[in-house]
Amino acid sequence: MTDRTFASLEEFRAVLSSLPVPDENAISAAKSRNAKLTKPPAALGRLEDLAIWYAGWRGNPRPLLERPQIVIFAGNHGVTARGVSAFPAEVTVQMVTNFEAGGAAINQLAKTFGARMDVHAIELDRPTADFTQGPAMNEAEVASALSIGWNAVDPDSDLLVTGEMGIGNTTAASAISTALFGGSPLDWTGRGTGVNDHGLKLKTQVVAEALEMNRDRDALRVLQTLGGREIAAMAGAIARARVERLPVILDGFICTSAAATLAFAQAGALDHCVAGHVSSEGAHASMLSRLGLSPLLDLGMRLGEGSGGALAIGVMKGAVACHSGMATFAEAGVSED
Amino acid sequence: MTDRTFASLEEFRAVLSSLPVPDENAISAAKSRNAKLTKPPAALGRLEDLAIWYAGWRGNPRPLLERPQIVIFAGNHGVTARGVSAFPAEVTVQMVTNFEAGGAAINQLAKTFGARMDVHAIELDRPTADFTQGPAMNEAEVASALSIGWNAVDPDSDLLVTGEMGIGNTTAASAISTALFGGSPLDWTGRGTGVNDHGLKLKTQVVAEALEMNRDRDALRVLQTLGGREIAAMAGAIARARVERLPVILDGFICTSAAATLAFAQAGALDHCVAGHVSSEGAHASMLSRLGLSPLLDLGMRLGEGSGGALAIGVMKGAVACHSGMATFAEAGVSED
Repeated sequence: MTDRTFASLEEFRAVLSSLPVPDENAISAAKSRNAKLTKPPAALGRLEDLAIWYAGWRGNPRPLLERPQIVIFAGNHGVTARGVSAFPAEVTVQMVTNFEAGGAAINQLAKTFGARMDVHAIELDRPTADFTQGPAMNEAEVASALSIGWNAVDPDSDLLVTGEMGIGNTTAASAISTALFGGSPLDWTGRGTGVNDHGLKLKTQVVAEALEMNRDRDALRVLQTLGGREIAAMAGAIARARVERLPVILDGFICTSAAATLAFAQAGALDHCVAGHVSSEGAHASMLSRLGLSPLLDLGMRLGEGSGGALAIGVMKGAVACHSGMATFAEAGVSED
Repeated sequence: MTDRTFASLEEFRAVLSSLPVPDENAISAAKSRNAKLTKPPAALGRLEDLAIWYAGWRGNPRPLLERPQIVIFAGNHGVTARGVSAFPAEVTVQMVTNFEAGGAAINQLAKTFGARMDVHAIELDRPTADFTQGPAMNEAEVASALSIGWNAVDPDSDLLVTGEMGIGNTTAASAISTALFGGSPLDWTGRGTGVNDHGLKLKTQVVAEALEMNRDRDALRVLQTLGGREIAAMAGAIARARVERLPVILDGFICTSAAATLAFAQAGALDHCVAGHVSSEGAHASMLSRLGLSPLLDLGMRLGEGSGGALAIGVMKGAVACHSGMATFAEAGVSED
């Protein structure tokens, strides 16, 4: 697959309608290999399932995991004018500078797990519109953000983590979640980077107003009208990864809201994704459970930046290393029973 | 601290009675640093607590984690004559060969997380006595195993994971747990590497007989009479790590049973330990909860070898890398609120 520039949501929707599936031969050969490794059956628990799943997407029964890529997208949100965040909007660009200088949490995690890290700041001086007053983006804007995400993925990597930075974006993610999953804004709105009780009440009210103003519940229209540029870019990157048969580790609440738009647009669109962690942002656990995703880590993280996904690279590396590196009973001369 | 040869349990008990405590100045400076890092307060969740805890034990408010050591001890168990395991006793020595050849799961995990790995096979041709007939070890034997563990720790490492291999050792761990925590053998006996219903009933019966035969409930006597050489060696290594101010990541059911003997012998003896994971071996979760330990990972693993602890090295490395590598708000020019 080559890079693309989507001119409309329909062009992106067409991609989602013909996604590749995992390689059943590789899965079958990986299962057979797993059964012969020097350990009691199933003793590596979920690591075994992860390795077989990874083998299926990579089309290789004994795959390596050596070139993980972390892509971070940053965007600004008009809704911050409503006072929904504990931090000022300038922090988005300041944190992008911090990413580029190597000073953020995600930089340390990328280094720890040997991941390439790319940062895409998307028109930070042009925030999305305040979605309590109209759609966050027009169709050209969301298609452009999807394209940026799509083109940010390195097809030569072997695992993708998508992360984000965008003051105000938990409000957008709450609005997306409410629109997709239903229920009330209260069910899907949390404290984000740390708003107080008053701020939480305000955020919930803002989400209710956003849903009232933007009534189209088609998943990609939800992404356009209630999302943000970094959220759409994550959706674009996750879709590109699928087309490249790159497994994806999802991060937290905002990343998962981007992924959810794909799942609602096309059943099975997240089959190549695993949930890296469950965030302490209130609604993330429900979101994962509604998507049928079971998190690898549960460490009370709620930073974004792809940090929970990046930490889970270690688990994936461990799983793949055991699967592909272990000796079989026959090779090691170990009695099977 | 130098290497030692314990001649009696009392010599080892004396060590436990004067264990070092963490460095409060380092903890305080690490907390202060943590509060200034470019992230919302507490947004890294448990990673922040882990980094501060690690800083306290290392006596350094901005520590590194670069030289983790995994030590695996292997031992054989007379109780296997009772048919308590799904694998024959020869597998212990076969797996030691596999460790030495680099073919086991733990080898792949050690490589993935950059850990040094040492294997100590302890008198495999001299299994412990069948503890349904008398004590598993005499005092000289347990003291020798404690010494082997003590001397296996590299004082220049900066993190320790202890692992084990020993066909029959879940039975020993169940006996230790029942003796220490109370309740019935049924509460603490599980399927180990995969015994069937009949095998589980037999194991439970064997544990009951072992407790009937060995009635001294002093924690170090429990280690001697119901333990095994590899279990005692893990206890010795964990104690040595404490004396060297090396944080320890505990592995699963058997490793935790070894650690539990220290906790019962001396309150607070496990303050330098974190639980790497909760195993799918039934009683491990209760054991951790009774010891006040909260696992970092929950991935259905039950292999032993230190594998769950080794996988958690990634989490510890991530925690320490974020803490010590991130920029502060002032350094990065990011607005705090």
